[in-house]
Amino acid sequence: MQKIFVTGAAGFIGSNLIDRLLADGASVVGWDNLSTGQERFLADAVPQRGFRLVRGDNLDLAALTAAMSGCDFVFHLAANADIKDGWAHPRKDLEQNTTATFNVLEAMRANGIRRIAFSSTGSVYGEATLIPTPEDAPFPIQTSLYAASKVAGETLISAYAEGGQLDEAYLFRFVSILGERYTHGHVFDFYRQLVEHPDRLRILGDGRQRKSYLYVQDCVSALLHVTRTHTARDAKHRTQVYNLGTPEYVEVRASVGYLCAALGLKPKLEFTGGERGWIGDNPFIFLDTKKIMATGWKPRQTIEQGIIATLRWLEANRWVYPARGSGEPAHS
Amino acid sequence: MQKIFVTGAAGFIGSNLIDRLLADGASVVGWDNLSTGQERFLADAVPQRGFRLVRGDNLDLAALTAAMSGCDFVFHLAANADIKDGWAHPRKDLEQNTTATFNVLEAMRANGIRRIAFSSTGSVYGEATLIPTPEDAPFPIQTSLYAASKVAGETLISAYAEGGQLDEAYLFRFVSILGERYTHGHVFDFYRQLVEHPDRLRILGDGRQRKSYLYVQDCVSALLHVTRTHTARDAKHRTQVYNLGTPEYVEVRASVGYLCAALGLKPKLEFTGGERGWIGDNPFIFLDTKKIMATGWKPRQTIEQGIIATLRWLEANRWVYPARGSGEPAHS
Repeated sequence: MQKIFVTGAAGFIGSNLIDRLLADGASVVGWDNLSTGQERFLADAVPQRGFRLVRGDNLDLAALTAAMSGCDFVFHLAANADIKDGWAHPRKDLEQNTTATFNVLEAMRANGIRRIAFSSTGSVYGEATLIPTPEDAPFPIQTSLYAASKVAGETLISAYAEGGQLDEAYLFRFVSILGERYTHGHVFDFYRQLVEHPDRLRILGDGRQRKSYLYVQDCVSALLHVTRTHTARDAKHRTQVYNLGTPEYVEVRASVGYLCAALGLKPKLEFTGGERGWIGDNPFIFLDTKKIMATGWKPRQTIEQGIIATLRWLEANRWVYPARGSGEPAHS
Repeated sequence: MQKIFVTGAAGFIGSNLIDRLLADGASVVGWDNLSTGQERFLADAVPQRGFRLVRGDNLDLAALTAAMSGCDFVFHLAANADIKDGWAHPRKDLEQNTTATFNVLEAMRANGIRRIAFSSTGSVYGEATLIPTPEDAPFPIQTSLYAASKVAGETLISAYAEGGQLDEAYLFRFVSILGERYTHGHVFDFYRQLVEHPDRLRILGDGRQRKSYLYVQDCVSALLHVTRTHTARDAKHRTQVYNLGTPEYVEVRASVGYLCAALGLKPKLEFTGGERGWIGDNPFIFLDTKKIMATGWKPRQTIEQGIIATLRWLEANRWVYPARGSGEPAHS
């Protein structure tokens, strides 16, 4: 039986992945420092015999190496994902994303584990000149610390793979993911605002930003489908890069429309203005997903369905919101 | 008067750059941990009033920040450049290249210094599918820890620049550089062998590897020309990427021919075989240099002239060789 190691186990995507792995009969070691992860997201997993949660930080290489013992595949999902506020603590991306990924690779090497999947981001394309953006787009210029740290993670993993230290390395460049256990992004922010003041909604930028969103269950299906069916062994590279998204995008204004209709609200919309929501915000993110669709996977939910599912989950789980007034709205 | 900070000051390229900067009347602070740098390379610089050498390591952010005080431009050349033996100490590239670059950027931010030039490498293109390889080649897969760490450095610098923390960032992707004060690479290795045993020469791979080499004085001229004349302020990006090479390449076998002719030797050639000299070696590196040539710079020496100049310098400076028998030949 496969024994799978998941970093970021108590996070949004990690916990959903773990539930699916356990349902499929895999044995799972979940690793999380619980800095942003929520133990409640693992409420279904923890009682199961096939699951073990280890609390630890990726910067603690000795503990990480010990926890990984006996595993044969690593999903490395742990990251600092605070994109907008990178300049408040630039070392955090370096440590929690770049150095952390290095430690995951060294722990794998020490344990003889030779297969990894990594959650990278579509933001690595910077302000892409080619849209929809394919995996082999022109070598981009990075525009955010977050994306820079994800590129650094990608390059470390591929150097290990191409250098013979790994057999298979899957780099998934995610669009924004939403759905159950979603805890930051524009739906999270808009719903909070509409609970606090149903008559008005503050929107970063001009609301014309176009983004693509993927429903978390579709994301998990893609991770499992590609890593189970597409071995990288036969290809020219041991590193396989996949955009992970959906062949749709929406304007932020359209998303606002879906949310307000579902809530029966007609708030006054207040735009902060400008084409970008924040420094480093990319006004148009749309990935070419032909490569991953060619593997046989396809998303089952539309963006609109994903947004509504997210809203319904937030309505039922308002405990995920921190105490009111803590910080600026953050959407990505 | 400009006050310029140079990391890797006592290195091959750094020390040549400093001599030129001082000759041009600039004031220079040289920073080096002297782990591979040679104080003798700064023998001309040290007595000059415009020069100050500070011994320190890029991992010591406080000392780095203090040393940078009052400077207005940074040439960040310090790096671990031991490409072939990366797997013996993988953390070294992470620390000395990636984390070091982060610290340089943070020290600049603390000092309000907003212009930087960075020595990256043509190895960031991996095994390029497009040759000669332009700056906007398809997003590559990394094949060595060294190149991965240089990509990480590039992405950090561009994130700082595009995020408004810098005004101008010049990323130079170097081919192999040779010339006076060259202390590793194939000419260094071949000359050592031919001194030890003039009748035979061991060559890594099949000798058909095609590489491009640039003479160090041409390299320094390019760094100065581009950073002095091409402000990045008017461009779409504050980050400007330039391949730095020459519109020629040679086979390793041709280089052997130049060296043997210059030395009057006819050694028996022993090839270790295979198209690669070592894991991660790229059998064909040839960069498209149209972009940098369009700035008005061009190399003044051919590859053959550069190889011979290197040989003559090594003959006159045999002190740069470590004691005989220490380690494997290393050429890049």
